[in-house]
Amino acid sequence: MAHNISHSRRLRNTPFTEGVEAKGVKAYTVYNRMLLATVFDSVEFDYHHLKQHVQVWDVSVERQIELNGPDASNLMQLLTPRDLSKMQDDQCFYVPITDNNGKMLNDPVAIKHSDTRWWVSIADSDLLFWIKGLAVGKGMDVEVFEPDVSPLAVQGPKSEDLLERIFGAEVRDIRFFRYKRMAFQDTSFLVARSGYSKQGGFEIYVENGDYGMPLWNALFAAGEDLNVRPGCPNLIERIEGGLLSYGNDMNTDNTPLECGLDKFCKPGEGNEHIGHATMARELAEGPARRIRAISIPGTALAPARAAWPLMAGETRVGQVTSAAWSPDFETNVAIGMVDASHWADGTTLTVETPEGPREAIVKEKFWA
Amino acid sequence: MAHNISHSRRLRNTPFTEGVEAKGVKAYTVYNRMLLATVFDSVEFDYHHLKQHVQVWDVSVERQIELNGPDASNLMQLLTPRDLSKMQDDQCFYVPITDNNGKMLNDPVAIKHSDTRWWVSIADSDLLFWIKGLAVGKGMDVEVFEPDVSPLAVQGPKSEDLLERIFGAEVRDIRFFRYKRMAFQDTSFLVARSGYSKQGGFEIYVENGDYGMPLWNALFAAGEDLNVRPGCPNLIERIEGGLLSYGNDMNTDNTPLECGLDKFCKPGEGNEHIGHATMARELAEGPARRIRAISIPGTALAPARAAWPLMAGETRVGQVTSAAWSPDFETNVAIGMVDASHWADGTTLTVETPEGPREAIVKEKFWA
Repeated sequence: MAHNISHSRRLRNTPFTEGVEAKGVKAYTVYNRMLLATVFDSVEFDYHHLKQHVQVWDVSVERQIELNGPDASNLMQLLTPRDLSKMQDDQCFYVPITDNNGKMLNDPVAIKHSDTRWWVSIADSDLLFWIKGLAVGKGMDVEVFEPDVSPLAVQGPKSEDLLERIFGAEVRDIRFFRYKRMAFQDTSFLVARSGYSKQGGFEIYVENGDYGMPLWNALFAAGEDLNVRPGCPNLIERIEGGLLSYGNDMNTDNTPLECGLDKFCKPGEGNEHIGHATMARELAEGPARRIRAISIPGTALAPARAAWPLMAGETRVGQVTSAAWSPDFETNVAIGMVDASHWADGTTLTVETPEGPREAIVKEKFWA
Repeated sequence: MAHNISHSRRLRNTPFTEGVEAKGVKAYTVYNRMLLATVFDSVEFDYHHLKQHVQVWDVSVERQIELNGPDASNLMQLLTPRDLSKMQDDQCFYVPITDNNGKMLNDPVAIKHSDTRWWVSIADSDLLFWIKGLAVGKGMDVEVFEPDVSPLAVQGPKSEDLLERIFGAEVRDIRFFRYKRMAFQDTSFLVARSGYSKQGGFEIYVENGDYGMPLWNALFAAGEDLNVRPGCPNLIERIEGGLLSYGNDMNTDNTPLECGLDKFCKPGEGNEHIGHATMARELAEGPARRIRAISIPGTALAPARAAWPLMAGETRVGQVTSAAWSPDFETNVAIGMVDASHWADGTTLTVETPEGPREAIVKEKFWA
């Protein structure tokens, strides 16, 4: 069923919206109360193009939260089970963020500027409110706010070629989940090798929205012969790659271990993580359910609008939370949460889709 | 420009979505990461109908936050400048919520169950994160969570007639911003005389989503001769009535006094409101700008997607944040924020709309 989106100031435009709409965006979602493109040509066309060429993505919805002050690093470590003690000043860390009960509040990327200054590049929840509430409640010496920073992603196999034309050959030296500050016009941006696809690429943290359209235009002008196109996180490609979506594949009902984020849950000595107590119990006992890749063979299914129950006979043993037809793997690729009793690789279950029951095969590994 | 919305689990369905879609909803917005209908027939048709008959609105997006425990009332008073000390157990209070700097985080309705149990019926921000962060940071003895409660509003001049058929004549005794618990099937709901229109009506706080569709269907079956229709907050009607929209008309940049909420900013003795210090200064000096009704005569303008600058000659003196053509008042009714220098009733300014500059007249009073 197709529905229009009603625009209003509350669904915020981004510094690149003018460019996104000039390029003919067809559909939007709303993410952090901001517009996020979902389709330019078709999800399948965009998918094939992403795997072959290079795309420019307006991911301003990855709003930044700045932690600034003497207690910034203490506060950051309070938020996450991941040990940040050895993190260097040019690193980006994927960090599960939990509440005091060890439940997921967000799964952002933390960017360390220095011991007294961090950015948190957030998934879809008002994490600012949690961080600020905690800091104010504890009387910590740190300012917490949303700076004027809007990430623009460049993704796909030709990303490095395109970015070299804008920022110079030095972009090739940026290591995975590291960043360098690169000059653009009379300013400079933090450029990280990261992004929400498995095709390689960069995220440019555009400080000051006025530079948004100049950068957007420069990328399209420089990339014409590389077949550069506008793009956006691609539903098919991100499921194939097992890239989780907060709000779709997990939410405040879930723990990091349920999300398979074990390697980020090995707190160091004297760990201050606010969810430490419950997480320690779960680490000892193991989680009750886990996110798994799920293959649903047969004809193409429409994307999931709600969780689809996973059944073993009459018993509900999990749910599918994201699904899309994969042209490359010729199956419906899906992400779900499966109980321990049925999460073994190769387990066959039934998924109740809006188009009827279908066979669902639990997989330990994602496709790409 | 029309764009589709891409559905996903992250844009949550409500217990009434099945009914909303069966009734032919044409467009959605996203509010608290949940679907909110915006148009059934047309915004103008829905507007005229709302003023004459009765509508059933799925306002599940008004998510509830429950504060439960010995410190619930202390925490609630920490959040808002409004004095809650004399509030009774069947009252609903509109409460500005601010951060420690006195900036607006939300403008919900607080519902008092008892001294140890409150609901906060929220506008569009993850207020749960702020309340919980503050409570955890301060080590308060209170649980903060989102219960399974989805409000259904019944609005319009025939609301009382319709609700009497469902809940009995006692609904007529519910006073404005008070509630009673009313039986339905084998359960009961809190029913309040409130709602986001000026046409009168009620909000039914549906506990347990399984009762959603039975109540929805009962209302439509009982109201056929009253010309009951599905509806939703109406852009034209809410601007005429001066009903503010958090995220549109104000956000974290603004204070309650800028929003004209002075009467809720007279803290009692020993007030613990976390934004008290900055608010006290602003109360003494007066706010620098205020929300005003703005009339934009001439032809109908398309609704605002972003703030439209309000200019006095070459100087920016404010902005329009919501606007719609009013068939009843034959002008574009609008809401804006205007600097003290130009907020006097009758001041003529220029508003820069996407359709060009237009005359804008500042008004002290809204239309309805």
